[in-house]
Amino acid sequence: MNIACGIEYDGTDFRGFQRQAVNHGPTVQGALESAISRVSDGAFSVVNGAGRTDAGVHASGQVITFSTRLQREPAVWLRALNAVLPNTVAVRWVRVMPERFHARFSAVSRSYRYTIWNDLAPSALHARYSYHCSKAVDVDLMNQACQALLGEKDFGAFGHSPNVSNPLKPGPHSCVRMMLEARCTRPEANELIYCDFTANAFLTGQVRRMVGTLLLVGQKRLCLEEFFEIVQRAEKTHPGSAAPSHGLCLVRVDYPEKFGVNER
Amino acid sequence: MNIACGIEYDGTDFRGFQRQAVNHGPTVQGALESAISRVSDGAFSVVNGAGRTDAGVHASGQVITFSTRLQREPAVWLRALNAVLPNTVAVRWVRVMPERFHARFSAVSRSYRYTIWNDLAPSALHARYSYHCSKAVDVDLMNQACQALLGEKDFGAFGHSPNVSNPLKPGPHSCVRMMLEARCTRPEANELIYCDFTANAFLTGQVRRMVGTLLLVGQKRLCLEEFFEIVQRAEKTHPGSAAPSHGLCLVRVDYPEKFGVNER
Repeated sequence: MNIACGIEYDGTDFRGFQRQAVNHGPTVQGALESAISRVSDGAFSVVNGAGRTDAGVHASGQVITFSTRLQREPAVWLRALNAVLPNTVAVRWVRVMPERFHARFSAVSRSYRYTIWNDLAPSALHARYSYHCSKAVDVDLMNQACQALLGEKDFGAFGHSPNVSNPLKPGPHSCVRMMLEARCTRPEANELIYCDFTANAFLTGQVRRMVGTLLLVGQKRLCLEEFFEIVQRAEKTHPGSAAPSHGLCLVRVDYPEKFGVNER
Repeated sequence: MNIACGIEYDGTDFRGFQRQAVNHGPTVQGALESAISRVSDGAFSVVNGAGRTDAGVHASGQVITFSTRLQREPAVWLRALNAVLPNTVAVRWVRVMPERFHARFSAVSRSYRYTIWNDLAPSALHARYSYHCSKAVDVDLMNQACQALLGEKDFGAFGHSPNVSNPLKPGPHSCVRMMLEARCTRPEANELIYCDFTANAFLTGQVRRMVGTLLLVGQKRLCLEEFFEIVQRAEKTHPGSAAPSHGLCLVRVDYPEKFGVNER
């Protein structure tokens, strides 16, 4: 049986999603595999995740798949896995999927939200899931800059292609991705700023580097024309540095409609 | 100078707000006093807090006062204190107040919010600040039960009066308090339930015991009439137990208008 799960995690204490060849500390994949192993006596394949989030990055909408010979109802998996997982990782839903469904390779897009706490004073209750920027930020300018990120283009300005086999890449180490959504908003005049991005796939560190550079625009340390040029040059030789990982969250993964994953 | 500050904290790793005679671990008051001491070379009085939250309880709207001989702008205090506080405690605002203003004794009411994550599956990102209740809950019933809590009455069913001098209490160890707001809501049909209470003052553990008992009503293990009777009997001999502390947050403290504290 091919099992898909919706996964939520607090990435603070994890060394990223993906289990590493050399053990540098706990990973989300490791926590999940250990939980699945405990409730299935080891009768399962490795876990595949739709998005390989970096150390410290959170997820509310990660999707994973694994295979098992065990015949169990989704509700039984849900209860059993949540009973043994640490409370920093939660299984939100479980579905039995057709064999051809793969969390990573079947995904058509990933959506990330970067959260900024924009106020002179920090927030203790938002500190874990947002980046504190105490300087004044013009969110409209950031949102205008986002226009330059839409569509299919080379995102070499904001990262590099991971050096692994990738069915999405059109050539070796290509940085071409298709950005479907890029938006910065400040809801109901409060201290939070949300930067939302959806793309077919992202380069390693891309969202954090885009946000770091957009924040320079918001602080008027970079004008819109300079931002557009940075995007167009597609070379990582500009002043923007990556925003810290704890503000980032993988919020959604979309799949072709036929799989019915996003209909819950 | 009499300084008032708005304080936010993540109570997870604190043994409550109040510094204890015997040291059982870090307290919010201790963290604040140590921070104020560092930035004022010890030239300050002890810190008074409006609400003495229990171990594990959070605050977004705690108010404290302390006295100091130092003449400093509020903005300087704000920056200096936040620079030395752990990121689980934040100073949200600072005001110079008249000498007669006291964070605790001048307060006319406190508001607490108890947050419940009501879904079969837990949430990793809400786990820190909400209590996971996996059973179905009828929030309308809980809200109807809240009617019985409004007004001035003996809340002996939900706690005891702390054995300390208390200018609010009409008699020795009285459990009479004035409840101004008591409401349970489920916003926009999602997994969260908010239980909001405002009173002149609360008994130790009162909100957590009220929520624990209201949850029995929501799960139909206690009918409305039984709940009303429990409130009226005002004796702690009923089936409701206290909901866990990590779902509770002190969200607001109100003062007489003349002080202008709530006008920010």
